[in-house]
Amino acid sequence: MRDFLMDGGIVRFKMFNAIVSADTLQATLDSVSVLVDECKIHLEEDGLEIRAVDPANVGMVDLRLDAAAFESYETDGGLIGVNLSRLEDIAGMADAGQLVHLDLDEETRKLHISIDGLEYTLALIDPDSIRQEPDLPDLDLSANIVIEGKDIDRSVTAADMVSDHIALGVDATDELFYVDAEGDTDDVHLELTRDDLIDLTPGDAHSLFSLDYLKNMNKAIPKDAEVEMELGEEFPVKMHFSFAEGQGRVTYMLAPRIQSE
Amino acid sequence: MRDFLMDGGIVRFKMFNAIVSADTLQATLDSVSVLVDECKIHLEEDGLEIRAVDPANVGMVDLRLDAAAFESYETDGGLIGVNLSRLEDIAGMADAGQLVHLDLDEETRKLHISIDGLEYTLALIDPDSIRQEPDLPDLDLSANIVIEGKDIDRSVTAADMVSDHIALGVDATDELFYVDAEGDTDDVHLELTRDDLIDLTPGDAHSLFSLDYLKNMNKAIPKDAEVEMELGEEFPVKMHFSFAEGQGRVTYMLAPRIQSE
Amino acid sequence: MRDFLMDGGIVRFKMFNAIVSADTLQATLDSVSVLVDECKIHLEEDGLEIRAVDPANVGMVDLRLDAAAFESYETDGGLIGVNLSRLEDIAGMADAGQLVHLDLDEETRKLHISIDGLEYTLALIDPDSIRQEPDLPDLDLSANIVIEGKDIDRSVTAADMVSDHIALGVDATDELFYVDAEGDTDDVHLELTRDDLIDLTPGDAHSLFSLDYLKNMNKAIPKDAEVEMELGEEFPVKMHFSFAEGQGRVTYMLAPRIQSE
Repeated sequence: MRDFLMDGGIVRFKMFNAIVSADTLQATLDSVSVLVDECKIHLEEDGLEIRAVDPANVGMVDLRLDAAAFESYETDGGLIGVNLSRLEDIAGMADAGQLVHLDLDEETRKLHISIDGLEYTLALIDPDSIRQEPDLPDLDLSANIVIEGKDIDRSVTAADMVSDHIALGVDATDELFYVDAEGDTDDVHLELTRDDLIDLTPGDAHSLFSLDYLKNMNKAIPKDAEVEMELGEEFPVKMHFSFAEGQGRVTYMLAPRIQSE
Repeated sequence: MRDFLMDGGIVRFKMFNAIVSADTLQATLDSVSVLVDECKIHLEEDGLEIRAVDPANVGMVDLRLDAAAFESYETDGGLIGVNLSRLEDIAGMADAGQLVHLDLDEETRKLHISIDGLEYTLALIDPDSIRQEPDLPDLDLSANIVIEGKDIDRSVTAADMVSDHIALGVDATDELFYVDAEGDTDDVHLELTRDDLIDLTPGDAHSLFSLDYLKNMNKAIPKDAEVEMELGEEFPVKMHFSFAEGQGRVTYMLAPRIQSE
Repeated sequence: MRDFLMDGGIVRFKMFNAIVSADTLQATLDSVSVLVDECKIHLEEDGLEIRAVDPANVGMVDLRLDAAAFESYETDGGLIGVNLSRLEDIAGMADAGQLVHLDLDEETRKLHISIDGLEYTLALIDPDSIRQEPDLPDLDLSANIVIEGKDIDRSVTAADMVSDHIALGVDATDELFYVDAEGDTDDVHLELTRDDLIDLTPGDAHSLFSLDYLKNMNKAIPKDAEVEMELGEEFPVKMHFSFAEGQGRVTYMLAPRIQSE
């Protein structure tokens, strides 16, 4: 399974051979493709890692899929670049429960993808040609809530009817999370108390965001997910959620818009 | 809940506060929006009333939704103007069984619409800027049938394949209701006898209608509704049906086209 | 039921009167309409026959629907020309289990189509104005497999992601059927062994086909059909399958493309 390749010296041939259910693969790809068309995938011994930022540097994603989420997973490390929509189309040919076999041919720079006897040979992209990966900064955000995915969906859908911005905030005194969208004539407002949320660690927070980004992130958040949201005063929002029965984790970070007076 | 407003004198503040299921609200709005984009809603003590006519003065609707159709209903009367498609979008965010809370703020001329904690503030339209409401004339129509909504749907769908007009008629001698559509090469014909109908009060009737209007009205008629249809000789057709378990009633009136020879 | 018509002599009036389930009629029409817009239908005493070739002379269909597939079937022979999409729209108004009554009025050259009281009068097309019917040649093809419709669907869907051509072949030595599609960067390959197939009569075969035609034919092949495929070396492919519980049979023939080196 291993080989040697001459490239100005002896270099270990990178090996990646894994089997994963089609729905886990799709959830992984969808979480990233809402922000970017291409991405780098880090093949680590204990799982996959993807970090990406959109061209405008506004939305970021940090995804990790543990080796345990796979039926089988073998690699000695490496980095590949993929076209996400192409890979989504391929995964989309499988039924939800079906297994997808991924096998990297480093020599040809191709990924062999097999689904029940059907083999798709996907040309990879030079990772160096893909936009640099962001560092998701550690932020000391004042408020922290845990909210159901469906409540994010409701907020985004309603706000989209009146505006292209959305304010997210926490009122530390009243211990509630709120959503505000102000249109030219109509407004949308949602308040969720500690009882309506899964958890709330109060702290004053209020920031305005572009609805387009939040709508895209919302597409990838399962309606039944428990989403941890970190919020601050005119600060980015961070959203964390799990998929693949907890063996996959996504963090989105969205930069705030300057609040207009 | 009541207040006073200065407007060249002391005027009673109009109050409207009601809770209704999302599907009842949607059926109400859909029945009117197939003809017009904006309408006036009369807030009466015993329920809502809407009357509207399309810009070409061809199709009219008269709708009544009893206070009993609401979970709770309070008003001291009034008249508001609404944008129907906007209101439909809002109602569309609720699940079918969910409750929608409507609360009028006369001072700001806004309607507060709450669905499970989500509050939408809808700007109302000045009723005076909305097309005048029609009087649905009392007509002495010669024939009267009661027909299932799905048979209207079949007739309209089939007629639409060959023509943009449809003739509706009753043959008093043979005691049957018929539909005729004549295209350039193909024709559609449907006959429903007393047995195929829910009821028939014979009388000779035959009129030609624009299919566009009937198609729109058909969209709002439930397939399982019992529709009472009043018909005459080159006269308008009137269609009556109920919704919200009989606590809502719609009458459509459609003017005939001049029969070409 | 019979009559006489003067047309330079005594000519037997053609009679055709049949009742068929809507889903059988739709399967019949769909199998032909993927290749042509209009076709001739031969009314034979023991059933219907349709043969057609697409305008580019690349894809052919030969369909037979036995009289036994009908609830009732009476004809003394004849030939009619029909607009397929129009007839599909009409059949589409019926529910799957509903019966469709077909009654030919040779005098007016119209076909009366009744569905539960709704009568559609369809103008027929002069058969002489329709493209001449092809003879499907007897070919001595080297390989023969029987494959599930869903495997054809998978192959066509995957190939379509990378190319507009598809190679179908049989490897006589390894006793397997294969599908190949080569794109600019990505490839698709499927191998089905004797065990994956319903049957295989080996013989070396390899031919390249236009994917557009195969995609259209695939639309009409039921996913659960057993499709017999005859293949040769740079020869047409023939595909045979049944519908209407074996009382309808379709043969498609598709001409190969010249293999480019």
